[in-house]
Amino acid sequence: MLTDLEIAQSARPRPLTEIGGRLGLTEDDLEPYGRHAAKVELAAVGARRPRGRYVVVTAVTPTPLGEGKTATAVGLTQGLGRLGLEASVALRQPSLGPVFGIKGGAAGAGHSQVIPMETMNLHLTGDFHAVTAAHNLLAAMVDNHLHHGNALGLVPHSITWGRVLDMNDRALRHIVVGLGGRLDGVPRETRFDITAASEVMTLLGLATSLDDLRARLGRIVVGFDGDGRPVTAEALKAAGAMAVLLADAVRPNLVQTLEGQAALVHTRPFGNIATGNSSIVADHVGLGRSDVVVTEAGFGADLGYERFVNVKCRTSGFRPDAAVVVTTVRALKVHSGAHRVVAGRPLPAELLAERPDEVAAGLANLDHHLDIVASTGVPAVVAINAFPGDHPSEHAVIASRAAERGVRCAVSTAVADGGAGAVDLAEAVWEASAEASELRFHYPVDAGVEAKLGALARDVYGAGSVALAPEASRQVARLEELGYGALPVLVAKTHLSTTARPQDRGAPTGWELPIREVRLAAGAGYVYALAGDMQTMPGLGSTPAATRMDLGPDGRVTGLF
Amino acid sequence: MLTDLEIAQSARPRPLTEIGGRLGLTEDDLEPYGRHAAKVELAAVGARRPRGRYVVVTAVTPTPLGEGKTATAVGLTQGLGRLGLEASVALRQPSLGPVFGIKGGAAGAGHSQVIPMETMNLHLTGDFHAVTAAHNLLAAMVDNHLHHGNALGLVPHSITWGRVLDMNDRALRHIVVGLGGRLDGVPRETRFDITAASEVMTLLGLATSLDDLRARLGRIVVGFDGDGRPVTAEALKAAGAMAVLLADAVRPNLVQTLEGQAALVHTRPFGNIATGNSSIVADHVGLGRSDVVVTEAGFGADLGYERFVNVKCRTSGFRPDAAVVVTTVRALKVHSGAHRVVAGRPLPAELLAERPDEVAAGLANLDHHLDIVASTGVPAVVAINAFPGDHPSEHAVIASRAAERGVRCAVSTAVADGGAGAVDLAEAVWEASAEASELRFHYPVDAGVEAKLGALARDVYGAGSVALAPEASRQVARLEELGYGALPVLVAKTHLSTTARPQDRGAPTGWELPIREVRLAAGAGYVYALAGDMQTMPGLGSTPAATRMDLGPDGRVTGLF
Repeated sequence: MLTDLEIAQSARPRPLTEIGGRLGLTEDDLEPYGRHAAKVELAAVGARRPRGRYVVVTAVTPTPLGEGKTATAVGLTQGLGRLGLEASVALRQPSLGPVFGIKGGAAGAGHSQVIPMETMNLHLTGDFHAVTAAHNLLAAMVDNHLHHGNALGLVPHSITWGRVLDMNDRALRHIVVGLGGRLDGVPRETRFDITAASEVMTLLGLATSLDDLRARLGRIVVGFDGDGRPVTAEALKAAGAMAVLLADAVRPNLVQTLEGQAALVHTRPFGNIATGNSSIVADHVGLGRSDVVVTEAGFGADLGYERFVNVKCRTSGFRPDAAVVVTTVRALKVHSGAHRVVAGRPLPAELLAERPDEVAAGLANLDHHLDIVASTGVPAVVAINAFPGDHPSEHAVIASRAAERGVRCAVSTAVADGGAGAVDLAEAVWEASAEASELRFHYPVDAGVEAKLGALARDVYGAGSVALAPEASRQVARLEELGYGALPVLVAKTHLSTTARPQDRGAPTGWELPIREVRLAAGAGYVYALAGDMQTMPGLGSTPAATRMDLGPDGRVTGLF
Repeated sequence: MLTDLEIAQSARPRPLTEIGGRLGLTEDDLEPYGRHAAKVELAAVGARRPRGRYVVVTAVTPTPLGEGKTATAVGLTQGLGRLGLEASVALRQPSLGPVFGIKGGAAGAGHSQVIPMETMNLHLTGDFHAVTAAHNLLAAMVDNHLHHGNALGLVPHSITWGRVLDMNDRALRHIVVGLGGRLDGVPRETRFDITAASEVMTLLGLATSLDDLRARLGRIVVGFDGDGRPVTAEALKAAGAMAVLLADAVRPNLVQTLEGQAALVHTRPFGNIATGNSSIVADHVGLGRSDVVVTEAGFGADLGYERFVNVKCRTSGFRPDAAVVVTTVRALKVHSGAHRVVAGRPLPAELLAERPDEVAAGLANLDHHLDIVASTGVPAVVAINAFPGDHPSEHAVIASRAAERGVRCAVSTAVADGGAGAVDLAEAVWEASAEASELRFHYPVDAGVEAKLGALARDVYGAGSVALAPEASRQVARLEELGYGALPVLVAKTHLSTTARPQDRGAPTGWELPIREVRLAAGAGYVYALAGDMQTMPGLGSTPAATRMDLGPDGRVTGLF
């Protein structure tokens, strides 16, 4: 069997002018970055034709292995192409840290991939590097401000702005900087996050124009002065230079699917503390130029889809026409509570046995995510991402639950078969997206922070109540006092369950959502509440994927996956 | 008067296919990265025609303001073009840290610049970012190795491999990593350098092929085990993945001069602890395809030119046909000892007065650098980089000293006048490069480390003796025992004087060169001896250049210079 890399390397990418040309993008609209990637000019954003249909791909609560959402999104796009539709897909850019950390990229899988896979999984057009540079320029200017007299009165221990690297490097989670002598800065404790966790990454994904990007950068709050007033990137005179560094990164990247459709790859905000969705600009390019745009939201519907609706769509003004909920047999079996899956270890043999009863026992989780989609007024389609060893009886369990709910359902074999394996899914999605829909948010944005938290807890997570730690309550009061109360609210919680406890399975109800801290992302434009410890800097395993990579004699990348 | 940025932005770059086409580079040889930069394929390296002449640009000991060596190199190239020659220029890529730190880039000045200036001074094609990623991947794998049981027995305090960022960030000079809990790595003290100081940057500049790059990466020594044996990137299984990250960065970048000639911009190894020269591969492309290649070596002839000869040319096998020694009136006046120049402050008024006697008093420094060039057997040309307020009587002092020495000399007004201002210089250089020359190294590479240090001290710096600290002597013995004794040796010393004391002026002789420490750069392929404190992470000033930058309403960069 061919590896993902071998499949990708054996494909011959078509000229990007041809790929873009089908969307009406001219050579002037495309700035080449390497032979098989291009930046799309911002002038090309906007409607060239009646807006295409907008399909968001979400999922059940994933196992640590992931459930093939990207592969399904790419496969669905290829399937829509087989129906004769001009379809494009909007994806998040993979992050170097995980690429070198654990096996598994973010370019799809098998015959449903975006190519060139090496370009996609390595530097692409350098956007992540630009985010790293802009983020760290602000950090250097913060420490430099302390060093040169601290005219703004920034209180060192109030500084929330760390540094970032696109690397899995646990030793940088907790560091002390500014050691050495008098000329070497002011000693203080701080941290590095992975670049995907940078607020700059998130605001790049939400910016609707260059002006909007510039304004959001200026609103970033790095810490507070002695009177508790926010100190911004604008006040530090850093926002202009950050915008200069990001002037190219704000444009989405054009690559292609294995079947020659436009793939708009752009940004990768973290899925727990941030939005977990690709950029508004990328979706906008596709919507103005395709029959249908497939866009992906991170993790389960409780996380990425919730933010897709309440933050991304609220900002962009776009409304999805359908939501695909990806599930796998193995994920539902795990949600039955009968199995445990560990990243980096082989699947337990008993998980692969024919056990439709276990699938049925895990359906509560699928129901929960379908309920979330239903609560937003958007038609859902269940996509069963099939693996070679799946049993038809197990697929049937899922399909019959979907039928009971009046929701379309299709099996996708797109990983094995490419677009041909997603034609049924594509038909179901195309039908669903023709239905009447309205987009309902989970809360009015001008409700209080606690009211917004309550709405998410009740209507998205199935919690019975919210418990704010005293410190979190004080933070809410302070943020509201400072005028940040009318921002959307995210809950930073585990993606491995629908609750705040990663070990939970299925879809528990009636539990208490504990909020220990509330933080501000003023540039991105939201407040986030921490329910549990969020890891914003991954580590490497004992045998990182990097140890298997090299260049072959012809200069080709080997061992990438 | 127009700023450098205004001049650069008012120029219309020619299509790169036209620029490259004049060198016989086809579309297959050029991979576009944006509209006005391209990567040159490695397949295009090598002789397409009789090798062109090879001209290296060096300088007297610079003031902290620099003496316009890059502008003179670009102007000379434009001047050679005016003579009807196909000339190309090889330059080092500017570093983001200084761009945001102090006013002054590395793309030339006035009418002798490389364009687009924004591309050149910001991300270009992402090579620096790739170096940062490759360097930090190895760092993460070092700390990860300690965390996961340290099978190689790496002694934590022996680790010399830090991390890098392309940022001026003094707070990262001395840091403690690995704090937090048991899962957050092993606590230890370490540092960040600026990316230009990375050994990866230097070895990228010296690599002659992809295979050579891969081998050099494997030879990097990160620290030692308990028996004092080196632990390499190969042993950590990091070198293959580093090569994967650098597979694009190894190809030189093609941009253009304001007068439409090929500018090959590639790498920027630090000038004090490393080679301070642009890449061998870039020079090689130009040499195989131009009548003449102008390449620049960092700082004065005691630093960049010495390494150009003893490290770069020794590695590449190329021999320069002429060396241009750039001087300015103000530098020689400073070398008289009568004035002091401080970066970021206006020039003292008395420095601008007509004082040919002061210029004469500073000639010892020019003589010293001309002696260094003469000691290598290469014909020299003195280039007087003229400023608008210069007095002809002062230029005459320099010209007559050159005449006494039998060395060609020309005034260049290339900053004000472009190539037209460098025609005299171009004629002098073209004549000099036709003379018989032989390249003499300052030492046989297989001499002992102390013998090599002695040769540099005596024949390059004019010192009377070398004093190794006891620790440095032990390090030399150990490196020779480990088989690293036959590598070239660099002395990491100040660039602000010919000695090891930055405050010295002119060209003192008979002094003692103090070596406090000797370090290994096994991947780059040299040993370096520290004569003084070398700053490998700059800081920002009280008003960084970044505070003046922004995007204009049309998205154009403003305030870059």
